[in-house]
Amino acid sequence: MAWLRTAFQDELDGVTTSLVELSVLVNEAMQKATHALLTANLSEAEEVISSDDRVDAMAHDLDNRIIEIIARQQPVASDLRALVTALRMSSDLERMGDMAHHVAKITRLRHPAAAIPSELLLTIEEMGKCVRVVAEKCTLVITERDLDKALEMERDDDEVDRLHRKLFATLLDESWPHGTETAIDMTLLGRYYERYADHAVSIARRVYFLVTGKYSDDSE
Amino acid sequence: MAWLRTAFQDELDGVTTSLVELSVLVNEAMQKATHALLTANLSEAEEVISSDDRVDAMAHDLDNRIIEIIARQQPVASDLRALVTALRMSSDLERMGDMAHHVAKITRLRHPAAAIPSELLLTIEEMGKCVRVVAEKCTLVITERDLDKALEMERDDDEVDRLHRKLFATLLDESWPHGTETAIDMTLLGRYYERYADHAVSIARRVYFLVTGKYSDDSE
Repeated sequence: MAWLRTAFQDELDGVTTSLVELSVLVNEAMQKATHALLTANLSEAEEVISSDDRVDAMAHDLDNRIIEIIARQQPVASDLRALVTALRMSSDLERMGDMAHHVAKITRLRHPAAAIPSELLLTIEEMGKCVRVVAEKCTLVITERDLDKALEMERDDDEVDRLHRKLFATLLDESWPHGTETAIDMTLLGRYYERYADHAVSIARRVYFLVTGKYSDDSE
Repeated sequence: MAWLRTAFQDELDGVTTSLVELSVLVNEAMQKATHALLTANLSEAEEVISSDDRVDAMAHDLDNRIIEIIARQQPVASDLRALVTALRMSSDLERMGDMAHHVAKITRLRHPAAAIPSELLLTIEEMGKCVRVVAEKCTLVITERDLDKALEMERDDDEVDRLHRKLFATLLDESWPHGTETAIDMTLLGRYYERYADHAVSIARRVYFLVTGKYSDDSE
């Protein structure tokens, strides 16, 4: 029955391919959302907002495919764990897409004004770059099960947290001149970037555990 | 093989029991977190913070049990769907516990000062009551697959959203005297309550879909 095992392996590979596609898509969405945010570009923001349905539909289709594979192949042990983990990764990726969507909606809400005051342009730009690095490594972790990259992502996430604290420090500076509305926007934006990175790290931890049977940190 | 089917049914019932336990636990945590927040009660907040590990451990154990049931019983069709849905519900409940934990941490951060300014005590109290109703119905939806309650929860969630908008309106009032730090806290709190209710509604939608094969709203 070697052909059966091979057909199953092909199906698992197909699941990985779909996860990678989703991962690339949400990374593109967040990069575009960040660019739209920094440049007050409404049409880019609209693109991100409308593309989120595609991410959701892809995640939904993938989930159904995974459940169908479990039902038909009745995998046990590590194959079953891999498929259940893929379901969770799909859910993380879908939420990452939601975060890009939320960022884009703040750009749209404030347009034609810029959502980001000049004092915070650099911090938000850095956060955007930092989550880009995290998301690109996440794609590699999914594709190649690169465990070094998975561990690096823990440290990259610390950098996201550092920028998040820097954002709050700017808001809390006595001389903050932009009022409550902008403070609310910045608080929500900070949270969206932080959650986006958290979901990417969560994916890396799932892969790490799947491959090694160990946790890459102490928090799980 | 009727006994096998029965043993399997017992296992499914055991999964439901654990989901109900988790649901009751996170509801208690959020109620206690809200009470601690409104009364600046540090010891209550600490209880919520330390109980979150228990929620996480229970969710983790339940997930392992579900995967083990899938591996051993190799269910197909509706039984498999029910187990996969249970995995997702466990994840929603764990996140609801995280939200209670986040609320409690704001109380601890501002103690001995009260985190909530007097203008917002009533709104936050109402939000707390509203998410309590949502969480109690969520428990009933899990236990009894009560579809009427599942549909009611969509409307209850609209009320949470209304209170969330009211919170922002208060923050954005010209006469808001409490500065940026409090505005940041209130923005995050609003988001935590909103997300808590969203996860409860998401559980109700999953049960609705499992029972009827239809979506209880158009958003999924």
